[in-house]
Amino acid sequence: MSGDGLASGDEPVAEARRRPGRRPGSADTRGQILAAARETFAEKGFDKATIRGIARQAGVDPALVHHYFSGKEGMFVEAMDLPITPDLVLSAVTAVPREEAGERLVRLILTIVAEEGARQPVLALVRTAMTNEQMVATIREFMTRALLNRVAEALDVPPIRMEAAFAQMFGVVLVRYVLRLEPLASADIEDLVKLLTPTIQGYLDAPR
Amino acid sequence: MSGDGLASGDEPVAEARRRPGRRPGSADTRGQILAAARETFAEKGFDKATIRGIARQAGVDPALVHHYFSGKEGMFVEAMDLPITPDLVLSAVTAVPREEAGERLVRLILTIVAEEGARQPVLALVRTAMTNEQMVATIREFMTRALLNRVAEALDVPPIRMEAAFAQMFGVVLVRYVLRLEPLASADIEDLVKLLTPTIQGYLDAPR
Repeated sequence: MSGDGLASGDEPVAEARRRPGRRPGSADTRGQILAAARETFAEKGFDKATIRGIARQAGVDPALVHHYFSGKEGMFVEAMDLPITPDLVLSAVTAVPREEAGERLVRLILTIVAEEGARQPVLALVRTAMTNEQMVATIREFMTRALLNRVAEALDVPPIRMEAAFAQMFGVVLVRYVLRLEPLASADIEDLVKLLTPTIQGYLDAPR
Repeated sequence: MSGDGLASGDEPVAEARRRPGRRPGSADTRGQILAAARETFAEKGFDKATIRGIARQAGVDPALVHHYFSGKEGMFVEAMDLPITPDLVLSAVTAVPREEAGERLVRLILTIVAEEGARQPVLALVRTAMTNEQMVATIREFMTRALLNRVAEALDVPPIRMEAAFAQMFGVVLVRYVLRLEPLASADIEDLVKLLTPTIQGYLDAPR
């Protein structure tokens, strides 16, 4: 009986916690903008897509797009349902001393993709990249402009070394979760951190 | 009429006995066996597929399969149109001193996939792995049993380190030829050999 009471009592609390300023219909407008973003990114690529163009596609004022999203990168992340923003990756690797950035990066990536719900959109994006020539360009532009070049610049690492590090982690995610080769697929995250950190840190350090 | 004779079930046995001397129809028989191999590998996986089972599926005598193919691994390589056999990889890395095996492996893989005709079947297999749950198991078994475990054993490297090395090269191939991230996509093979050899050799060496 008390269980029932708890269940019904939960809802008003959730209602009360709702962010102030949210009006009915907001969710739809937001979803409408994200749908327009997906179309625009697929059509124009990441570099040529603009907030203004996405707003036009969604039939809303650009100010409304700025109200809902922090910028083009954030829109891409949300449109593709990605589990992390480039800003978060960047602040994670720059928050530690440079000689710890490799380990930080390896643990961050492995921890994120360990969660099924976070991993699925990432694998979906990889599948898209494998089969859709137009979306490959969009994904490439996003990866380069929004993520790899920024991390490379922040850590003062040549872009090709950043890409080699990305290739290592990308390959590990596919071997662990798509091919599921053993023993790597069942290995503990901390064992993988030990195994992969010398490689990633090696790429971040000066050329050997 | 010899045409009727060919169609009858026991004729292929006679054909195998008449070695050498390729007769008209050999190419078709070979193709027929490969088609049966593809079906059998997809259905049963690599480990459980047998020469006998593939022969039965193709409606030929097992001796004929042995006549055309050196073994199950060779059949898989030909059925999937792969550009290199596990035997060749193995002999390439064991033909040089152990401290040169990393460089040898990196150059071998990059040189093979540089050729479009050799690369396409490899990428086709990756696409299959990304979307076809049943074929993933077959590819995993082939990779593990026929390639990675054998190289790991020959070089006395723990399997998980061999898989990390594979993940690095797998990721590089995808970054170079599918995502085509620059500057890695346009880099010279020898520059990539310099960049990647410390990583691959590091995995082959004793745990750091």
